[in-house]
Amino acid sequence: MKFTIQRDVFVQNIQHVSKAISSRATMPILSGLKIVAFDDGVTLTGSDSDISIEAFIPAEDGDNQLVDIETPGSIVLQAKYFADIIKKLPEATVEVSVNEQNVTKIISGSSEFNLNGLDPDEFPRLPEVEEGNSFQLKTDLLKALIKQTAFAVSTAETRPILTGIHWGMENGTLYCTATDSHRLAMREAAIENSNTDLEFSNVVIPGKSLSELSKILDDTEETIDVTVTDNQALFKAKNILFFSRLLDGNYPATKNMIPSNSKTTVQVDARKLLAAIERALLLSRDGKNNVVNLKSIGESKLEITSVTPEVGKVTEEVNCDAFEGEELRISFNGKNIIEALRVIESTDVSVQFTGAMSPFIMRPADRDYMLHLFSPVRTY
Amino acid sequence: MKFTIQRDVFVQNIQHVSKAISSRATMPILSGLKIVAFDDGVTLTGSDSDISIEAFIPAEDGDNQLVDIETPGSIVLQAKYFADIIKKLPEATVEVSVNEQNVTKIISGSSEFNLNGLDPDEFPRLPEVEEGNSFQLKTDLLKALIKQTAFAVSTAETRPILTGIHWGMENGTLYCTATDSHRLAMREAAIENSNTDLEFSNVVIPGKSLSELSKILDDTEETIDVTVTDNQALFKAKNILFFSRLLDGNYPATKNMIPSNSKTTVQVDARKLLAAIERALLLSRDGKNNVVNLKSIGESKLEITSVTPEVGKVTEEVNCDAFEGEELRISFNGKNIIEALRVIESTDVSVQFTGAMSPFIMRPADRDYMLHLFSPVRTY
Repeated sequence: MKFTIQRDVFVQNIQHVSKAISSRATMPILSGLKIVAFDDGVTLTGSDSDISIEAFIPAEDGDNQLVDIETPGSIVLQAKYFADIIKKLPEATVEVSVNEQNVTKIISGSSEFNLNGLDPDEFPRLPEVEEGNSFQLKTDLLKALIKQTAFAVSTAETRPILTGIHWGMENGTLYCTATDSHRLAMREAAIENSNTDLEFSNVVIPGKSLSELSKILDDTEETIDVTVTDNQALFKAKNILFFSRLLDGNYPATKNMIPSNSKTTVQVDARKLLAAIERALLLSRDGKNNVVNLKSIGESKLEITSVTPEVGKVTEEVNCDAFEGEELRISFNGKNIIEALRVIESTDVSVQFTGAMSPFIMRPADRDYMLHLFSPVRTY
Repeated sequence: MKFTIQRDVFVQNIQHVSKAISSRATMPILSGLKIVAFDDGVTLTGSDSDISIEAFIPAEDGDNQLVDIETPGSIVLQAKYFADIIKKLPEATVEVSVNEQNVTKIISGSSEFNLNGLDPDEFPRLPEVEEGNSFQLKTDLLKALIKQTAFAVSTAETRPILTGIHWGMENGTLYCTATDSHRLAMREAAIENSNTDLEFSNVVIPGKSLSELSKILDDTEETIDVTVTDNQALFKAKNILFFSRLLDGNYPATKNMIPSNSKTTVQVDARKLLAAIERALLLSRDGKNNVVNLKSIGESKLEITSVTPEVGKVTEEVNCDAFEGEELRISFNGKNIIEALRVIESTDVSVQFTGAMSPFIMRPADRDYMLHLFSPVRTY
């Protein structure tokens, strides 16, 4: 194998596939990054037990020659060293060549590295994803779906299924749901031009996989192909294949957790509510379980308080833009509310309460594509 | 005590004095920040066993009213909460008032905090620094002196004296020296308008103190007053007093460590040498003690290599701008060289070697105010 490649393109794609490579890989070969040179370009592949990423660097991109391939071939190099080396090389191009003992020579200007490579035949194959349930969506929408749900997955391994995000498709709408059993985030999106016969549920993608996917995608309107099978999801973007294992098990039925009636509904400015709860949390974050108390003052204001006896007390007032129903007094985990408020892009939020000990709902006031559900906290 | 203060000025000065406040203070009162309101302004004080910082916020700065003092007084508040609270308040001004039980009310817009204060009489007094050895220097020069020496102090507590930077004054020149016994950094500076009779040595200021001082000073040409006594150094800038304890013990005599003769002298581009050693370190940083090998190739080039048998080998070439003397082959800790090269601002460096097992010297090629000394590493 021998090729010369533009260094910046090489670095960017190495960083993409490195997201799938664990420094604590169970098999030594999986701490490596596989490079294959074809006549028409170079593929880079990284893989761990959950995620596999393949990036393709075409020989030519329009008029721009990215790679000059002299001899096709393949090699696996230790990812940890390789990414840093290419990043720090002195020139704009890099020459990579491999000898019969898998020793890989990397030359750029007056710098020469000779790295011990691994046998590329030992590298595991990418998962086989036969054409299953497929649909398309735009990259920026996919990134929004991930951002607005992934924060709510469980980080505890006690119920592994809750570390994933549930995807279900029904009547041309994709429903994405994440919950750690104390709070739930749900976002839906119409899938344009979709085959409306396509229906699936219990597709549970690890939250970590989707977060990594989101990091390597740019915020564009380019289309991504998504295919889900029984145990894999494949995201196919321009020059990138991203495979994720699905989680085994049955995701809890979440639809009937959502209360349909409401005793109190308030509408408030999302940024002001966020800032008030952030300040209230300053006194409750340490060992106090982030408990924040909220009560209505007439129909015009909410009072938000938090007390830590040793330190002091904070009292915040937030004006209501609308208030309907009974007076209100409830306590909750303020950190959960903040994380939801940070992914709501609307100016106002509407919050529906059904009593001090019942879960409550928060939504953007002007959109119904998103819903956040929170358990209250008992404080007496 | 009651005053109203501009929030941004308050935040900036709280951050300054917080640098002296440890979250693991031995005495509870030292985890606090002391606030004193006078008729003409407010002082903030933070202290640990090594450093004390006092910042003064004048009531008026030119035409700009910074503080409106209603009632003078004083209080100590837990620094950890206080800094975050003031930073996150909603309005541009903050009202602070204290009642007889030391409860401190902080109001900004619709936000109100009531914090339990501590008795200000329990807060330790600032060190007394009688007029001792005093001189002046410009802030940007002081920051340069610190940056160019502090990186070389020892981080091991086996020889505490080496965690400090030695300051000595002789013939109107200030000499700053730091060493961890494997490398040494020395920087000197002429002190303008100084009392040339002023001489001192064995003033050893903790490296950490000087690094913290550097962080709160802006890169200006304003003058700083420095006073050193037997056990304290005081740095007096506009509206800031910074006290540091000095280290006890005798600093090693470093002048006679510096070789006066040289067998090989090379001059190279500092940035190119830095980049080449950084790349060589990529393969030697893990458990290989950062060992890098250097040898001369004729009189025109240096070859820099590093080998880690499991991973591979790197070979770098750097052109010599000048070469004089014997051929050269030496090994050293590349990380130490890199840290010195990062604080040398000149284009070229001159390196003087006196043999494979003798310490070698690096200096800026165009200035003689700075010197770096390194022990070689035995590799056989």
